[in-house]
Amino acid sequence: MHASGVITITTDFGHKGPFAGVMKGVIAGRFPEANVIDLSHDIPAQWPPEAGFWVGRAYRYFPKGTVHVAIVDPGVGTERKILVVLADGHCFMAPDNGLLGRLLEDADDSAAYHLDANKLDGLGLETPSATFHGRDIFAPVAAELAAGRVSVDEIATPTQEWAPAWLDRPEVSKGKITGAIVTIDTFGNLISDIDGELVQGFKAPVVHIAGRHIGMLQTYGRAEPGSYLALVNSFGVVEVARAEGNAAEGLGSARGAPVTITDGVSA
Amino acid sequence: MHASGVITITTDFGHKGPFAGVMKGVIAGRFPEANVIDLSHDIPAQWPPEAGFWVGRAYRYFPKGTVHVAIVDPGVGTERKILVVLADGHCFMAPDNGLLGRLLEDADDSAAYHLDANKLDGLGLETPSATFHGRDIFAPVAAELAAGRVSVDEIATPTQEWAPAWLDRPEVSKGKITGAIVTIDTFGNLISDIDGELVQGFKAPVVHIAGRHIGMLQTYGRAEPGSYLALVNSFGVVEVARAEGNAAEGLGSARGAPVTITDGVSA
Amino acid sequence: MHASGVITITTDFGHKGPFAGVMKGVIAGRFPEANVIDLSHDIPAQWPPEAGFWVGRAYRYFPKGTVHVAIVDPGVGTERKILVVLADGHCFMAPDNGLLGRLLEDADDSAAYHLDANKLDGLGLETPSATFHGRDIFAPVAAELAAGRVSVDEIATPTQEWAPAWLDRPEVSKGKITGAIVTIDTFGNLISDIDGELVQGFKAPVVHIAGRHIGMLQTYGRAEPGSYLALVNSFGVVEVARAEGNAAEGLGSARGAPVTITDGVSA
Repeated sequence: MHASGVITITTDFGHKGPFAGVMKGVIAGRFPEANVIDLSHDIPAQWPPEAGFWVGRAYRYFPKGTVHVAIVDPGVGTERKILVVLADGHCFMAPDNGLLGRLLEDADDSAAYHLDANKLDGLGLETPSATFHGRDIFAPVAAELAAGRVSVDEIATPTQEWAPAWLDRPEVSKGKITGAIVTIDTFGNLISDIDGELVQGFKAPVVHIAGRHIGMLQTYGRAEPGSYLALVNSFGVVEVARAEGNAAEGLGSARGAPVTITDGVSA
Repeated sequence: MHASGVITITTDFGHKGPFAGVMKGVIAGRFPEANVIDLSHDIPAQWPPEAGFWVGRAYRYFPKGTVHVAIVDPGVGTERKILVVLADGHCFMAPDNGLLGRLLEDADDSAAYHLDANKLDGLGLETPSATFHGRDIFAPVAAELAAGRVSVDEIATPTQEWAPAWLDRPEVSKGKITGAIVTIDTFGNLISDIDGELVQGFKAPVVHIAGRHIGMLQTYGRAEPGSYLALVNSFGVVEVARAEGNAAEGLGSARGAPVTITDGVSA
Repeated sequence: MHASGVITITTDFGHKGPFAGVMKGVIAGRFPEANVIDLSHDIPAQWPPEAGFWVGRAYRYFPKGTVHVAIVDPGVGTERKILVVLADGHCFMAPDNGLLGRLLEDADDSAAYHLDANKLDGLGLETPSATFHGRDIFAPVAAELAAGRVSVDEIATPTQEWAPAWLDRPEVSKGKITGAIVTIDTFGNLISDIDGELVQGFKAPVVHIAGRHIGMLQTYGRAEPGSYLALVNSFGVVEVARAEGNAAEGLGSARGAPVTITDGVSA
């Protein structure tokens, strides 16, 4: 990987307190020229799949050679390892708790590593705290990687074993796909893990959620105010929206809710 | 315009999901030295006037040559055009939906353009998605403008037509001005669209809102705790506050509420 | 102080409106190479102690020579002064309202100054507004300090007097310490102002809060789901958490709540 100098950060830290800011302070101390970009700090507390989903869908809009740090880490301070993944010219770091599971399943060509504490001696890390590895391990290691001063194989050991993704992949059968709502955006749009390519062959795709049958359109602006619509969104997955409204509130659907797409009203 | 390398971003995307972050990734890929500054991502969903208000009041605190991108875009994916405005040495980009209407009305000297898809060929944009022009059009074009690699007239066509502002300008008569609350800040201060200069000639300005008559002071700290006060705020408009309290909650007033100022208790 | 070029910003401005963004615009106009890092803008409105707590606990993770600007400023526009502190190789600026009181009490070696309006002439500041000194005074002065173009004694006058901290220091007696909850993070963890070093000599430290007696552990991951635990957190203070839950909600405890630690169940 040829380092781009860019680091992205995705966490469930929220905006209270200086947690993400302190990570940027540590990075600034090691690599002042780093371009640190927040992806989101509003991942639902301790729910890794959403962080993995967004990192996996968003990374390609960053320059190759970017280091993507994702921290949703209920097991911090226990024996859980830290996973480093090289895929598609990007580098990913996360607790090995399933966060990167789907990304590893989806990547055509990837290499997974576990960060090796024994190999970090040369980096001058302080003894890490038990509860904030984002500051004490992820930030300094990401800074060194993004600066191009160390390579992944100098600080980590190749592995074929990692925690699996928390959500099963969508179930695909003839004329029917079943997946899950993986996140909800600010507008109340329900975003599924169903890749739009899976429905490309459908003649009349219908989305089933919360007892409703919803047709698919190209964009929000073409639906009647108040009506529900589904579309393949700008990150390539099926999303349920409500024109000039909030689909999540209207449907009473939450993260994790099942969603089925059939070709025609019933499969 | 002599590009400053600074880009501001104002949206209604909120902080869930990587939407603003991905725009910064696209910018970093084209113009790594860009200084990208968030103005706010908490504009109320799909209400362009507040975005236009803040951009119009805030831009002068940025270096001349800054590119200000504002995206509140209920019509994304439909035929709505993208407006580019040059005014006061700054560049503004927004959907042509009224967001920049007031800024264009207020500017002494401005030039408006519509982005021209035919002129963008040389920029190497990917085919834009139907629902995220912030990432696919605004970000790459803003990066090129902020880098000084293209000028507005190379990528856009002059126009005299644009969508008007959503809010009427304040109504001014002798000793009386009527405007609207355009936004509410974190402290619950009600911020109007009435320019402080309009009340400068008033001997005893009184603000009428939610059935109350409120006098004008110089600053928050001079009022009794719990009492309401009005002042010309730091962005030059009349604002209603509550000393050590929350005016919006106390008055039950919301965005869009009418507010009248008279010279003396009644005009 | 040898300026690092880094500026941190901590405020109670929230994320509505362009307040922090405009400060960054002012900084960009004076010192384009500045690395401006948000610590938090979600300090509870007009409660300086939390801002002071986080700045005091977080600054050491930034490079020496960083300028830390903290603005929670109920007295803006009144006669309150602006305090500038040099401590531990860092520079701190805040309204003189107690925000930096604890930091000054705790610092081994510090120097306090009041910003002197008469000495600012050479900086070319515009006449400050009555209500937004963050933009009009703090941002431009921080930019000049961070750029290394002025030193603190050129723009400020040494002082031995400043507003005291709002919270008393924890009360320490044999086998018993009483302090307060100073902030609550996104996970609902209750963070106290009791330094972990104070309980190091305790054989069996027990935390008393909201009528409960809670034992101390090393990290979150070692407790049973739903149970309460206390630990010395990554910023060196005692924190009460709930494993896979929200301690603040579970205990009904808020900012300012008293917390006592005894050696053994009773002291």
